[in-house]
Amino acid sequence: MNTFGRVLRLTGFGESHGEAIGGVLDGLPAGLEVDMEYIQAEMRKRRPGDGCAQSRRKEEDRLHILSGIYRGKSTGTPIAFVIPNQDARSWDYAELEDKFRPSHADDTYQSKYGLRDPRGGGRASARETAVRVAAGALAKLFLASMDISIKAYAEQIGEISLPANTEVDADTAYAYVTRCPHKETDAAMQAFLEKLRRQNDSTGGVIRCQAEGLPKGLGEPVYDKLTSRLASAMLSINACRGFEIGQGFAAAGMKGSEHNDVWLENGHTQKNLCGGVRGGISTGETLYFRTAFKPIPSIGQEQNLLGEDHRLHSLQIKGRHDVCCVPRAVAVVEAMTALTIADFVLLARTNRI
Amino acid sequence: MNTFGRVLRLTGFGESHGEAIGGVLDGLPAGLEVDMEYIQAEMRKRRPGDGCAQSRRKEEDRLHILSGIYRGKSTGTPIAFVIPNQDARSWDYAELEDKFRPSHADDTYQSKYGLRDPRGGGRASARETAVRVAAGALAKLFLASMDISIKAYAEQIGEISLPANTEVDADTAYAYVTRCPHKETDAAMQAFLEKLRRQNDSTGGVIRCQAEGLPKGLGEPVYDKLTSRLASAMLSINACRGFEIGQGFAAAGMKGSEHNDVWLENGHTQKNLCGGVRGGISTGETLYFRTAFKPIPSIGQEQNLLGEDHRLHSLQIKGRHDVCCVPRAVAVVEAMTALTIADFVLLARTNRI
Amino acid sequence: MNTFGRVLRLTGFGESHGEAIGGVLDGLPAGLEVDMEYIQAEMRKRRPGDGCAQSRRKEEDRLHILSGIYRGKSTGTPIAFVIPNQDARSWDYAELEDKFRPSHADDTYQSKYGLRDPRGGGRASARETAVRVAAGALAKLFLASMDISIKAYAEQIGEISLPANTEVDADTAYAYVTRCPHKETDAAMQAFLEKLRRQNDSTGGVIRCQAEGLPKGLGEPVYDKLTSRLASAMLSINACRGFEIGQGFAAAGMKGSEHNDVWLENGHTQKNLCGGVRGGISTGETLYFRTAFKPIPSIGQEQNLLGEDHRLHSLQIKGRHDVCCVPRAVAVVEAMTALTIADFVLLARTNRI
Amino acid sequence: MNTFGRVLRLTGFGESHGEAIGGVLDGLPAGLEVDMEYIQAEMRKRRPGDGCAQSRRKEEDRLHILSGIYRGKSTGTPIAFVIPNQDARSWDYAELEDKFRPSHADDTYQSKYGLRDPRGGGRASARETAVRVAAGALAKLFLASMDISIKAYAEQIGEISLPANTEVDADTAYAYVTRCPHKETDAAMQAFLEKLRRQNDSTGGVIRCQAEGLPKGLGEPVYDKLTSRLASAMLSINACRGFEIGQGFAAAGMKGSEHNDVWLENGHTQKNLCGGVRGGISTGETLYFRTAFKPIPSIGQEQNLLGEDHRLHSLQIKGRHDVCCVPRAVAVVEAMTALTIADFVLLARTNRI
Repeated sequence: MNTFGRVLRLTGFGESHGEAIGGVLDGLPAGLEVDMEYIQAEMRKRRPGDGCAQSRRKEEDRLHILSGIYRGKSTGTPIAFVIPNQDARSWDYAELEDKFRPSHADDTYQSKYGLRDPRGGGRASARETAVRVAAGALAKLFLASMDISIKAYAEQIGEISLPANTEVDADTAYAYVTRCPHKETDAAMQAFLEKLRRQNDSTGGVIRCQAEGLPKGLGEPVYDKLTSRLASAMLSINACRGFEIGQGFAAAGMKGSEHNDVWLENGHTQKNLCGGVRGGISTGETLYFRTAFKPIPSIGQEQNLLGEDHRLHSLQIKGRHDVCCVPRAVAVVEAMTALTIADFVLLARTNRI
Repeated sequence: MNTFGRVLRLTGFGESHGEAIGGVLDGLPAGLEVDMEYIQAEMRKRRPGDGCAQSRRKEEDRLHILSGIYRGKSTGTPIAFVIPNQDARSWDYAELEDKFRPSHADDTYQSKYGLRDPRGGGRASARETAVRVAAGALAKLFLASMDISIKAYAEQIGEISLPANTEVDADTAYAYVTRCPHKETDAAMQAFLEKLRRQNDSTGGVIRCQAEGLPKGLGEPVYDKLTSRLASAMLSINACRGFEIGQGFAAAGMKGSEHNDVWLENGHTQKNLCGGVRGGISTGETLYFRTAFKPIPSIGQEQNLLGEDHRLHSLQIKGRHDVCCVPRAVAVVEAMTALTIADFVLLARTNRI
Repeated sequence: MNTFGRVLRLTGFGESHGEAIGGVLDGLPAGLEVDMEYIQAEMRKRRPGDGCAQSRRKEEDRLHILSGIYRGKSTGTPIAFVIPNQDARSWDYAELEDKFRPSHADDTYQSKYGLRDPRGGGRASARETAVRVAAGALAKLFLASMDISIKAYAEQIGEISLPANTEVDADTAYAYVTRCPHKETDAAMQAFLEKLRRQNDSTGGVIRCQAEGLPKGLGEPVYDKLTSRLASAMLSINACRGFEIGQGFAAAGMKGSEHNDVWLENGHTQKNLCGGVRGGISTGETLYFRTAFKPIPSIGQEQNLLGEDHRLHSLQIKGRHDVCCVPRAVAVVEAMTALTIADFVLLARTNRI
Repeated sequence: MNTFGRVLRLTGFGESHGEAIGGVLDGLPAGLEVDMEYIQAEMRKRRPGDGCAQSRRKEEDRLHILSGIYRGKSTGTPIAFVIPNQDARSWDYAELEDKFRPSHADDTYQSKYGLRDPRGGGRASARETAVRVAAGALAKLFLASMDISIKAYAEQIGEISLPANTEVDADTAYAYVTRCPHKETDAAMQAFLEKLRRQNDSTGGVIRCQAEGLPKGLGEPVYDKLTSRLASAMLSINACRGFEIGQGFAAAGMKGSEHNDVWLENGHTQKNLCGGVRGGISTGETLYFRTAFKPIPSIGQEQNLLGEDHRLHSLQIKGRHDVCCVPRAVAVVEAMTALTIADFVLLARTNRI
């Protein structure tokens, strides 16, 4: 089940320390101009500034496209792409071969399949998200041709949050190390991350995403609501723990008379509290949602690992780990949103005779 | 896209005021004893006590099974069932035929399809959830044969929440009008709902669900993680606005050293902060998650409706509406969880040679 | 896997002697005028004249639509329909409960599921094809709105075949008892069937189907070619044993210089030997194919049945059986073709930006 | 729709003269020993002896596996593989850029997508079948672990057919240039192909395939019968024009009393005329079917091409073309059969509680 989407379908593959990761994007409409510079720039968005990581793989994620494009345009056939794992061989994983790290997927993969590739987390590694960003860049190009844009940014990193009701310019998110487009908050977040780094600790955060330019009518009731598929897309991202659309969990405490959106005569609403979706179908107003990420479980502190020998082994795990996944995950959230919406755009073409 | 699931697939149909709603459950393994009493009892769980609604359809949801069962056992062929809409004809909807209620799906259906069945919200009505409960009851019977149980309860209704860290007996939830298995909180919630009823207002709430007895290894990485599909299942429910697994949004503010689950030698963890899922795959520990519901948009107060004539029309909408969907939605959350898990149980049989 | 199609999806259900058979057609575009007279007339096409059957169920297949249509138009939501099994209770099946008839699906269902509904073949009964015809009628209405028409007729019944290169008017097929629109051949086929009836025997036949008005570009390479899905649709019909497109098996003996279609300047070809499909994609010329049906295995002669006791039991099976399925299957072939093409018409809307 | 299968899913990609072709096989159970020598040997089966082609690409199809295998065993994660197009650049296709060859997919791709990769047929090239053979080899390894074997051979090439009722040893097919395991027929076929080569002509043929060791119970009624999916698999192969199971088209002329299989007390049948499938479900007896291939449309004779300028252009097309696809297609037929059966083997695990 490594395929995402119904009409526009991404099939991903690859392990963290195998030869390559990659994907096949099938169903992208023909005739789309594929700007490789743009795609490579999107790939770089997943590589945050130095403030966010303890150390990092040095490789640049060079996308290598094998099929589906002719003379710069999509042909309607599958677009396969490969991203080599350049410096994967150097990593030493022998120590972890028979031990399960806390809060990782080591033991669950082992239980499910009876064996696993232990190198760097194998298929469960967040390295896999580079594939999502690559495919998402293609989806974004398609959406851009219809003036649909998607922008995400960091709203919270650990104990530091963007102050409530702060207006920010989401367009500038990638100019900030933390992807929080607010100078003071970005600085505070960086300082917090620096402190955690020194403590060999990590943290989580919250990303807010919004999409503009959506036509009315996207989303397939009842089990494939726009909200349902967005939630699925987000929770499929490594470390994602929560999703809320519009007012989300806050809506639970509101009254109907507060939460009901007040119509304007032009068909828009005063406050768009519904987040751009009614009955699982896009309203044409701004779509917005928030998604929560847990702390990266790979920390440099000494912890107990569970051995296949059913004993605990105290170990300080080495390796290159980010302090917080949020700055990198911003690009992934955008990519998965783009894939989801593009799929619905295509499906919506079949709604009427 | 009215089909849910991969191997165990529910296809639902029906409008609120059409002739009937119903579904086809395909892929339920053969040989399961189908206890019709149990299923009808599950259907009743979706019918809360009188404290929760302003007025209510009087019909009992009698499930009528048309196929797939022979001599009390599932045969492996599709199980079709129909639930007649008994007192649907009495409702007067003429006034709403050319007007869109606030925060309903009236206008989005109209935009998507160019026409709609306006009677009681048509396909967008929460009446559709009775189908989920019926199919979920079959899934629960299958899961029960493997000692997997699913229990949900109301944790918050509007401004009233179960006090933090209150231990409750989830088994008793349906003994409480609000489905909150805590005497004082249930009473406070009822009082709050009564107040809202008098104000012709409504509210939302939060449901917590947990599943026990899951084997390790359920969930299909990477796009069909157990979390991903659960989120999709929940957000497909009418009025659902949010989902969080384990520590959810709270995890965003934690440190890795706090959030990482500490191994016990028996392979369990001290606190199961991950909520029973690691890397999208079940750990064998208790699965738990929370899901948020917005206030029911149908309120008895005078509101502006948007006309197809692009004008606002002030109207007090009549009809039978609950004050809060949460007490009824508890059974729906359980049903969708059961369908999701049962599907994964079947898929997991294909993981190894 | 009782669902057929990708965007336009039919989910069927029901056993021969259960309470009802039926289906849910999901994905039919909104706004289609649904002429119930037309649909009921299509249903009658599956009921051949008296020359073809030994005896027959007396019930008229009344289609009962439960959802998805409002004021005579499709709404885009699932169209559920039920066809009651009116005189099903009268049939005596006790004798067959623990015995497997030759060349039926009795033993394979038993092996697969561990139990089965033995009444009239259960789910394996050709009665199930009424569901296909009902859904196919809806698909035909959709195709008719684009001037796409589908016509099938009997080309061979047992030892009687339409003479080679006979021009027939496919439009008139249903005016003939055997569905072979050629007076002399129809008469010979009827005589042959009458002879078989007296012998308590049965036979098979061949149906030719053609579709006109298809746009260029239907079919999804490479695994979902138009030919691939048509073949799948045909071989899913009870008793179907073969499929060939264009010159089919005869093409195997031809030379490329003979088989290659000669272009005309208008973009058509001289002879359309390819049958309207090149590279799995429709050419815009007439689509035509042939499909073979085996003799109905239910014959009135004394035969050995295999008992669950692993012994042979000589028995003369009673019941109402056709002498040849072909006259009834003509409508089923048309229906499955319509569902297949309609699905591709919708998918083709997503091919280009 | 470049994905084949439900649980075991092959997603293919690549154009004839692009950088590479390849695929992703998802859902192969974990723990399978992957013998790379075996797979490479399977790939060579698709490369016939020199008697069958006019000239041929020199490249050896080296399979390069990127993921999903660890220490020689499948891990349950997607197995991605790439086959580079080594000598693709040398081909001159400028002449065909704006012209459509007869009986090729040039114009249909152009109509469907608005543009196409004209080099060597692009995605419509039979080169794509190498991907099927690679994935099929993995499926065969899985099936071999259950003692299921699949063997195909050429039964007819153009005007030369294996004499009726000739017993052959299917195991030896690949020892013959034409893949017809009968010395005299193979010689006659070779002579016929040599004659066609000198005439710059081509021909078609028929392949027979049989599978042994299948358990009872494979196949998912009613739309996903084993026969339905096999037909779909075969007709998805380039140049395939027909499929018949068991007695196929010959069954159309038989009587029920002839065609009905006579039970033996051991549960087998005297003649297995049904071809190993009853009611779309495997019987446990030998599965056998035949599939027809049309002549390769690429012939060296002068022909009229249709220009995008709507004129006819007489041209002698150059390039490397086989005289008959059948000798190479034998391996492809086996591969698609293996993928189909392996998928059903996995699905069948979900049939019972």
